[in-house]
Amino acid sequence: MEVMQVLHMNKGVGETSYATNSTVQSNIISTAKPVTEEAILDIFNNVLPESVGIADLGCSSGPNALLVVSEILDVIYAKWQQLGRPCSPEFRVYLNDLIGNDFNNVFGSLPAFYNKLKEEKGSEFGPCFISGVPGSFYGRVFPSKSLHFVHSSSSLHWLSQVPPGLESKDGRGSWNKGKIYISKTSPDCVLEAYSSQFQKDWSVFLKSRAEEIVGGGRMVLSFMGRRSTDPRSKESCYQWELLARALMSMVSEGLIEEKKVDSFDAPYYAPSPEEVKFGIYKEGSFILDRLEMFEIDWDGGDGDNYDATPTSSTLSNGARVAKTIRAVVESMLASHFGGDVMDGLFQRYGEMVGDHLAKTRAKYINLVISLVRKV
Amino acid sequence: MEVMQVLHMNKGVGETSYATNSTVQSNIISTAKPVTEEAILDIFNNVLPESVGIADLGCSSGPNALLVVSEILDVIYAKWQQLGRPCSPEFRVYLNDLIGNDFNNVFGSLPAFYNKLKEEKGSEFGPCFISGVPGSFYGRVFPSKSLHFVHSSSSLHWLSQVPPGLESKDGRGSWNKGKIYISKTSPDCVLEAYSSQFQKDWSVFLKSRAEEIVGGGRMVLSFMGRRSTDPRSKESCYQWELLARALMSMVSEGLIEEKKVDSFDAPYYAPSPEEVKFGIYKEGSFILDRLEMFEIDWDGGDGDNYDATPTSSTLSNGARVAKTIRAVVESMLASHFGGDVMDGLFQRYGEMVGDHLAKTRAKYINLVISLVRKV
Repeated sequence: MEVMQVLHMNKGVGETSYATNSTVQSNIISTAKPVTEEAILDIFNNVLPESVGIADLGCSSGPNALLVVSEILDVIYAKWQQLGRPCSPEFRVYLNDLIGNDFNNVFGSLPAFYNKLKEEKGSEFGPCFISGVPGSFYGRVFPSKSLHFVHSSSSLHWLSQVPPGLESKDGRGSWNKGKIYISKTSPDCVLEAYSSQFQKDWSVFLKSRAEEIVGGGRMVLSFMGRRSTDPRSKESCYQWELLARALMSMVSEGLIEEKKVDSFDAPYYAPSPEEVKFGIYKEGSFILDRLEMFEIDWDGGDGDNYDATPTSSTLSNGARVAKTIRAVVESMLASHFGGDVMDGLFQRYGEMVGDHLAKTRAKYINLVISLVRKV
Repeated sequence: MEVMQVLHMNKGVGETSYATNSTVQSNIISTAKPVTEEAILDIFNNVLPESVGIADLGCSSGPNALLVVSEILDVIYAKWQQLGRPCSPEFRVYLNDLIGNDFNNVFGSLPAFYNKLKEEKGSEFGPCFISGVPGSFYGRVFPSKSLHFVHSSSSLHWLSQVPPGLESKDGRGSWNKGKIYISKTSPDCVLEAYSSQFQKDWSVFLKSRAEEIVGGGRMVLSFMGRRSTDPRSKESCYQWELLARALMSMVSEGLIEEKKVDSFDAPYYAPSPEEVKFGIYKEGSFILDRLEMFEIDWDGGDGDNYDATPTSSTLSNGARVAKTIRAVVESMLASHFGGDVMDGLFQRYGEMVGDHLAKTRAKYINLVISLVRKV
């Protein structure tokens, strides 16, 4: 599977689209907002440059794509007013994602975005030039020293490729039979393959951004992670475990070939804070200013209204969670298993998630880090 | 009609898409190539800057979208080699079009484009960062002084809006009844409305680019025009005349309401060289280095193999021409007349064009101008 060609959030605005199933990611953006604000205020403490370069990596489509940009401009606008409204900087805003992303959808919402910007902030603020930059952030995507602030949310847990080394060299097939990510029963070599791919990608990511960000510039990155040092811990892989079970239940009914499941592995990794820190230290271009962790319920809520009673409501929670996952992983799964089994798969997955949620409150762990480019 | 929201070349890669019906525009790009080459060599006569900004305005989708970029990079590459391969510049390439353009299609062809670039020119040349910039070029779309070379082909004949003043103020309706552009019988007020909208748009275009292009930077622009000072001349409006007749034939059969035709006017203008020059002189930021005119057959050929015999071949020429026009104007016509009459309309139009081609060799007049930003 060519991850860079295949991976994209579900396009359009239909029932299974990412645009209508991205509350989890939207809540993650909101939760990380204070860190984003702090970072921006730190960059533009006393002066705003003439031309400000801002990038959102893995912008996706739907309402989230411009949400972050909007938040960032709000903070800069407040700073601009506080500094006594000097001549406004111009803003270069780069929306980056893989080539399969639905950029048409994002671009379609720009006229309304520009109108709102003008209404709320007046025509003295800006201008703001928004462009779409297709390409993998595991490599260069922007000109040298062109950026002041880089943001990325819910994207860096995607690896550049499925880790090599998940197949046995002696022809015995996959080391991870019946699974599609690290699971409780995964042998060490699977863990090592994933961890090593993460370190490689993370290093390339940091090195690429180091060339693109000006000295003193900042990055705020949030992505799935784990608290535990053990990558087999439920908090970082149980959503994949259930998806593997849903696939295997289709195998048992003859709807999917078992070897298809054996040969599929998600290009995903939920790192621990230590792994993240190690990569930053080793690459050497950035200072880690802040690392925070927070929990987010599988259904995107903050859990205040959580009810574990196994009623029809929690079962429909399962279906809702399945839809949020489907919007994200369907492009990859459909490319490997075929589009025709997707409805059945996510039906089963929704039921399994529902059962799980009836027993326990399932949460993702999200990491947010704030980095400063060394001068 | 909101031109900026509605106008786009037909999306996708199907039978009626622009991607498969853009030979005319591709031939125009090829014909203007020597002017483009000359302009680029003039900018980079002795030295290549560290970071080169290139924009293609009205990039559209399909094979033409990256054709120009490819040509431009070829010329710079040759210059780079000639200068003794100093450190390569990095290239910032901006593909601009209105928000309705099929950017997803363009972005999908980028991996192959980048691979070809690397294969043909080696990895020492570049890097090249291609981005999509949605928005109307009748206004600012790029940061200040960020561009060295701007190209636009087959786009500037589109106006920013339908000219105001085509409706009578005394409630007698359209001044241009039964027509959709300037025609032989158009009253002077119609001509004035069109010409005045062109001058207004042309001035805004030049003023916007003047802020974005560095001193000594260049533009090469090609667009539909006319040799004659008379905007009613057949060479600049007969394709619209036939399209109006096709619409009126549907009116006569009750398939389209007559008032719908009366209230539709194309946001298009084919200026004379004098009008173009006048606008450049009046705006004042650019020097006109070159203005050329060439003919291009309606079917995109250069006419060497032209055969006027009214055979089935020339009749199918009519259908082919109708498809090239449909790929360009359908978004606007469908928005006004409804999508369900499009097949019938272009069927009729193809027949009318076929009849016309059987009698005469029909040609568009294309203008190519090369401009230098004053230092």
